[in-house]
Amino acid sequence: MKGFRTNQMIAVDWKPNKQDKTPIYRQIVKYISEKIAAGDWPIGSRLPSQRDMAQTFGVNRSTVVSAMEELISYGILESDFGGGTRVASNTWSIRMSQPPDWNKHISNGHFRANLSTIQTINKKEFEPGYIRIGTGELAPELYPGKLVSRIFGRMPEKIPNLGYLGPLGLPELGQALSAWLKERQGIEAKPSNIMVASGSLQGLQLISVCMLKKGSRVYTEAPSYVKSLQIFQSAGMRLSGVPLDDEGITYWNMKEADSDSLLYTIPSFHNPTGTVMSEVRRREVMQFCQGLRMPILEDDAYGQLWFDENPPKSLKARDKTGSVIYMGTISKTMAPGLRIGWVVGPEAVVYRLGDVKMQTDYGASSVSQWMMTELLTSGDYDIYLETLRRELKARRDNALTALSQYFKGIATWNKPSGGFYIWLRLHCKVSMDKVFADALKAGILLNPGNMYDYGENHAIRLSYAYADPEDLRRALKILADIIEKHQKR
Amino acid sequence: MKGFRTNQMIAVDWKPNKQDKTPIYRQIVKYISEKIAAGDWPIGSRLPSQRDMAQTFGVNRSTVVSAMEELISYGILESDFGGGTRVASNTWSIRMSQPPDWNKHISNGHFRANLSTIQTINKKEFEPGYIRIGTGELAPELYPGKLVSRIFGRMPEKIPNLGYLGPLGLPELGQALSAWLKERQGIEAKPSNIMVASGSLQGLQLISVCMLKKGSRVYTEAPSYVKSLQIFQSAGMRLSGVPLDDEGITYWNMKEADSDSLLYTIPSFHNPTGTVMSEVRRREVMQFCQGLRMPILEDDAYGQLWFDENPPKSLKARDKTGSVIYMGTISKTMAPGLRIGWVVGPEAVVYRLGDVKMQTDYGASSVSQWMMTELLTSGDYDIYLETLRRELKARRDNALTALSQYFKGIATWNKPSGGFYIWLRLHCKVSMDKVFADALKAGILLNPGNMYDYGENHAIRLSYAYADPEDLRRALKILADIIEKHQKR
Repeated sequence: MKGFRTNQMIAVDWKPNKQDKTPIYRQIVKYISEKIAAGDWPIGSRLPSQRDMAQTFGVNRSTVVSAMEELISYGILESDFGGGTRVASNTWSIRMSQPPDWNKHISNGHFRANLSTIQTINKKEFEPGYIRIGTGELAPELYPGKLVSRIFGRMPEKIPNLGYLGPLGLPELGQALSAWLKERQGIEAKPSNIMVASGSLQGLQLISVCMLKKGSRVYTEAPSYVKSLQIFQSAGMRLSGVPLDDEGITYWNMKEADSDSLLYTIPSFHNPTGTVMSEVRRREVMQFCQGLRMPILEDDAYGQLWFDENPPKSLKARDKTGSVIYMGTISKTMAPGLRIGWVVGPEAVVYRLGDVKMQTDYGASSVSQWMMTELLTSGDYDIYLETLRRELKARRDNALTALSQYFKGIATWNKPSGGFYIWLRLHCKVSMDKVFADALKAGILLNPGNMYDYGENHAIRLSYAYADPEDLRRALKILADIIEKHQKR
Repeated sequence: MKGFRTNQMIAVDWKPNKQDKTPIYRQIVKYISEKIAAGDWPIGSRLPSQRDMAQTFGVNRSTVVSAMEELISYGILESDFGGGTRVASNTWSIRMSQPPDWNKHISNGHFRANLSTIQTINKKEFEPGYIRIGTGELAPELYPGKLVSRIFGRMPEKIPNLGYLGPLGLPELGQALSAWLKERQGIEAKPSNIMVASGSLQGLQLISVCMLKKGSRVYTEAPSYVKSLQIFQSAGMRLSGVPLDDEGITYWNMKEADSDSLLYTIPSFHNPTGTVMSEVRRREVMQFCQGLRMPILEDDAYGQLWFDENPPKSLKARDKTGSVIYMGTISKTMAPGLRIGWVVGPEAVVYRLGDVKMQTDYGASSVSQWMMTELLTSGDYDIYLETLRRELKARRDNALTALSQYFKGIATWNKPSGGFYIWLRLHCKVSMDKVFADALKAGILLNPGNMYDYGENHAIRLSYAYADPEDLRRALKILADIIEKHQKR
């Protein structure tokens, strides 16, 4: 019967070992996986009812249910029309019942994020109907459709072909970025210092794989951007959170920093707190790190999104010794779907990164790279940014108005001078899980602050970039009620 | 003086240990790296002359030169205008003097490829002036500029925004692929069985990371596609080469195959030999692998490029038990620069792959995905493929004519019925390194067969897809002369 659908009913004659440290339900998962992998239970065969299995195993029915649910989620079992359960697959799926190291790293990490909260957020973000008050993206209505159409219109004459590109990306984009970084940000970088990545997250990924030693220490602001933390953890780094004050990271708290460590920082419009590192602090951080010969990874995803004035010059613009790797992206300013980011660093470093990039995905989409080139060289990107800044500033003001209306006495918050985020600190300790769940029931998807932090906190990352301004006001009113209700308990 | 350019001349008082097993030049590299890392030798300071260092170290000058060259290639040292050497960098670059595991895996691998040949090829492919008779890409003149312009023209009305996409990619593309795979290839796959990747190389990378156990055995055709082999090796798999006959892989030679192993195969227009797995062999391979519950990775990069008739149905089209993961791409048929590939497999598997993809680069370019969708749904892609098939067939005929003119008595070769490749087997054993070098001098870049193999061979992978047909004929004439010259020696 091997390999064919069958109606065979399976006979079970096994019991979990209740003395074993392994949870009973995991023993059941393992037993069933092994039976299927061995070919003892062919595809399509039906399992006994949950009640029967609970009886045979000598366990509660809920334990059997947990095991079945896990196996169904792996695709090993599937539900029957008749309410029963069948063997669904036996080759690839079996391998997944042992989760890969990758995910283990992420879930076993230092930080306290409630993983199921993150998973809920990732899932709900693709379901319509929620007001998303923490989403770190531009609202769809801010998408500059007309500009993009114009750029598309110019592509045919610009693109000679869509062949493979070299390790650093499209040479024309390297030149355009070199000129733009100099003019707009005072960063002196030759095209040979710039590698185009499929978004800056991939840049970070490559740096982790190529440049960092396993077990070495990475200092980050606490709290910090959760996806970056995950990448460092997956690559086997030890993370250390360093508190922020109003001027940025309190670098003097990096007690064991040395040339084997690394500082990952978001100096401008920090994610999730919105903080801008001050001019003085930037100078001090550079001096401190260079004195220790400790490299710096500067994430500048939001630097162009200032409202009234430019933030102080980036760390990279101050770097005379090649100790800063700088990462920029178009994902937060215009179009994450282009998947374009740039990594700026010493030549030898970007070549190494490019080399490994070629071994993983052969470079970023050349259509995207040509579009980015056109955006920069035409000047259209800069003009667009001016409009976007005004729009974001209005959205920030709308959020701040709502906060002073509903959150006085409940929380404190910063007034961001750029970027997407307001860091809302609640006065009283409430269960963030319960606030999250109640908000979800009320149709509001929020990002609890502990997702971003090394320890507990009672904060919420608000983003005024995504939700419709009126929706955001309405959601904040409801959220304030939910929090007050929990505070009273 | 820390961190600033200086004219300080460095004093050296150290000698390598000649008893040590470490090569002398490596000891010198290590010594200099450490001095710079420690900050003892500041950036900008000048090293003593090579002659002086050779004297101090008590070694040949050529040993010092090797060490200097390595450090210059890392960006740690740089050449001076005056002919001397300076300290160039000290933070990131130092880390690279310990090559990352990644590359170690690749260079320490089983297969005998001459790594410097591969590096030469990778480099020369971006230099003009060579006739590239082995390049596995479509010629730039085959780029369908007008078609792409038309697609660009339709994009503005098709693309609603360029936001982030979910783990499987653009839903519209999933639907288009599902329909196209069914109609053109008889593969039954729901959109939920399809993950869009940034090229099929990335698909392979994700599968290696997520689905395969370290140390597990991967069977491949011998010879096989070199980049796939590298990915498996980097992920810590053990590779086993299985010989090909005229009908495809001789599966009965997979002696230790079991459910922990994996078969990676290119059944249609195999790279590099051009072989098509026969109908009978396909059935046997499926039966053999399913009997062992051994999963199959089917790479179908060339399947659409048949000349007179479709190759036998893909393995995936025969797969009733979810044991085949199938990979397709547009890179070989039209536009590698789009970076679009697709992975087809059981739902749970593609979700896991998509999940990990989100953690690395957040998905493929959505512009590329929209363009691919439009190519498929408009039917323009199928029409284009018909033209391309005719063109490639004419190029194949041109290559075969040249071969019968110049290579009779020197080599044997196959007559491919699709794809890009002719596998040219030389009758006599000649040094492939010397043939490669002489051809390079004559302006011809070729891909020696041993790049693709587990052991020595005396073959050359010819591609009729890239070089201009007249250039190819000319190059083959010159190559025949070079080989004859070496055979006579």
